[in-house]
Amino acid sequence: MTSAPQLSHRASIMPASPIRKLVPLGDQAKQRGTHVYHLNIGQPDIPTPPEFYDAIRSYEEKVIAYGNSQGIRLFIESIQQYYGSLDIALDYDDIVITTGGSEAILFSMMAIAEPGDELIVFEPFYTNYNGFAVMAGVRLVPIATQAEDGFHLPTTEEIEQHITPRTRGIIICNPNNPTGTVLRDDELMQVRDVALKHNLYVLSDEVYREFVYEGATRSVLEIEGLEEHAVVMDSLSKRYSLCGGRMGSVISRNKRFMDVVLRFGQARLCTATLEQVGSAALVAAGAKYFEPMISEYRQRRDATYEELQKIPGMLCRKPSGAFYIMAQFPVDDIEAFSAWMLTDFSDGNETTMLAPGPGFYATQGRGSSEARLAYVLNAPECRRAVELVAKGIEQYNSVNRKDK
Amino acid sequence: MTSAPQLSHRASIMPASPIRKLVPLGDQAKQRGTHVYHLNIGQPDIPTPPEFYDAIRSYEEKVIAYGNSQGIRLFIESIQQYYGSLDIALDYDDIVITTGGSEAILFSMMAIAEPGDELIVFEPFYTNYNGFAVMAGVRLVPIATQAEDGFHLPTTEEIEQHITPRTRGIIICNPNNPTGTVLRDDELMQVRDVALKHNLYVLSDEVYREFVYEGATRSVLEIEGLEEHAVVMDSLSKRYSLCGGRMGSVISRNKRFMDVVLRFGQARLCTATLEQVGSAALVAAGAKYFEPMISEYRQRRDATYEELQKIPGMLCRKPSGAFYIMAQFPVDDIEAFSAWMLTDFSDGNETTMLAPGPGFYATQGRGSSEARLAYVLNAPECRRAVELVAKGIEQYNSVNRKDK
Repeated sequence: MTSAPQLSHRASIMPASPIRKLVPLGDQAKQRGTHVYHLNIGQPDIPTPPEFYDAIRSYEEKVIAYGNSQGIRLFIESIQQYYGSLDIALDYDDIVITTGGSEAILFSMMAIAEPGDELIVFEPFYTNYNGFAVMAGVRLVPIATQAEDGFHLPTTEEIEQHITPRTRGIIICNPNNPTGTVLRDDELMQVRDVALKHNLYVLSDEVYREFVYEGATRSVLEIEGLEEHAVVMDSLSKRYSLCGGRMGSVISRNKRFMDVVLRFGQARLCTATLEQVGSAALVAAGAKYFEPMISEYRQRRDATYEELQKIPGMLCRKPSGAFYIMAQFPVDDIEAFSAWMLTDFSDGNETTMLAPGPGFYATQGRGSSEARLAYVLNAPECRRAVELVAKGIEQYNSVNRKDK
Repeated sequence: MTSAPQLSHRASIMPASPIRKLVPLGDQAKQRGTHVYHLNIGQPDIPTPPEFYDAIRSYEEKVIAYGNSQGIRLFIESIQQYYGSLDIALDYDDIVITTGGSEAILFSMMAIAEPGDELIVFEPFYTNYNGFAVMAGVRLVPIATQAEDGFHLPTTEEIEQHITPRTRGIIICNPNNPTGTVLRDDELMQVRDVALKHNLYVLSDEVYREFVYEGATRSVLEIEGLEEHAVVMDSLSKRYSLCGGRMGSVISRNKRFMDVVLRFGQARLCTATLEQVGSAALVAAGAKYFEPMISEYRQRRDATYEELQKIPGMLCRKPSGAFYIMAQFPVDDIEAFSAWMLTDFSDGNETTMLAPGPGFYATQGRGSSEARLAYVLNAPECRRAVELVAKGIEQYNSVNRKDK
């Protein structure tokens, strides 16, 4: 009787964040006076546009009141305007503002899939899809992509082998977190054809849209034939260095789908009013903000990739987008190595925090020697952070070898 | 092939907000130049404390960055301090910051109940429990409370009749939305005894804690024996007139439960950074903010109740807490009447928007002549809004009578 009541099954399978689980070890390292380079989390250091702060500081209403569940008009119209600048025409009701891309993912999954239903996802994938799938009771069906061919999509046959009567949609992330891969047009057509043939939703995570360093890609909203199938899960977090703003949106031309998303939105009343007011001002920052930012990230990618290439046994392709590199390390157990970097290693009183690979896979055993590196520091810092990884690997493997 | 793919079952049963569904009709009335008194939504007009704005305006960080998933330290400590002022000692890890009380409800339900599991709720109840239950796949089991005895709890026997092997918890809301009822200590003991006997969680929505006009009540966190069972779903929305801030928390001394809530929190990364910075400054507003506010609301309640008493056939008890009155109207169909007030009625170019009763019930057919009135306007406005209701009822019933 005095024991605690049981928790739910989903509570027991709910994953801890692999991006954040090393944080306690990092904090201990910092308490010892060690500087930690954070390559583990996609937290950009680029200043948030001043337009955001200015709009919030000049907000004059005396009450921080509920907004509409769909979002405040000014912000929704600014998103229409932003998509207009990409030549994507959207109706006002094609947009529902969400608390970050996170809520956009959760609402989208819940709208199309019932507990026990399946969503196809290409692994490695953004780790928190796992968490939202557990919350929604939805089963993620992972299909492997390979480092050797730049994590591009598998064949149509392979995708179709994973479709069952319970499949409700395909999740893509373009440009990709964690691989940095940018989908080619033939891949988008492949996704379209499969979606139309099997009548599946395409949930497209496009939060890294601007982060393309070579070539170009498109939004699923631009693909003819997918009007009723395409859903974009969007966020301002990366685009405007606004991770702590929690401003996202669900966008689709499927009116029945959007009506469901709005009802989910009504249950939680609205998203933060001030953050919407600030975000509505960001569309004005536009291209003049993106251009120097992308050129800065390109340098960071090049620096990080160059340093990784110097490490014997390190395998990775140069990614074309987002701000991540998924690399295969010359170590047996990436989880142990990543923890060791924080607990046992330092060089000049500095070390590096990584995001271990297994968290980005749903298939048990995959990713065990991979890690994701987020190149969100300036180029010299990225170089130094990877140099620390290089020294760490050397020391770790020599210690390990002695142990054996 | 070109038709839209199907939506989930939960999408089809997801309710629209009964508090907000009349909004389009209200907007049309406003477009005709009619002033609408909003008694439909618990949106206070009391100014948010200046401490909130000051803290945000003086925030100097150049990047709006992710915070910890649990919440930022300053804010969590301010909540510890606030509960300390109520003589409730909490560990730092007893608290997880959430995006409004809404997310606190969703996370709490998901942590303890699996799709198909049951939660007991006393109806009428806060309408959005319905929406979160649908999202979580959880079944709400409503037990009726009665207007005649002030919506107090039913007998233990009646509660126990509704407990099944799938029951995981009991939801209480104290002070209550929508009834304004404040639980007596013997009722809290009754809930404790049932929870301990059947090993159930007690999910306690205490967002109206300060809004008590007669007598007193306690938090479930103060009840001995419930250390592992008590969960508080809290929010600053009403307490500090911060509805658009979306700042809430889940609080429990059950460490395993809190670990699950934190993992749910990690999936969605964090809550809004600036809003947390502002909210951390609010504990300093404290009693000097609450006292005049509560005295103001007491006047509003008295004015609203007095005017309601003047309406022939209107039935309600004077509530002791929150800022709502659930009243039984002398009309056949409250949904039709509430809509008619916006589409067909005006007096001196003014009308009143109500929240129709059925949305606060899970049992089909209940509440069909009830409405919730939120006395969130000043006393003269509350009087005028109810006077409009009185005139509306007279006119509506005479028209209806003629129709028949």
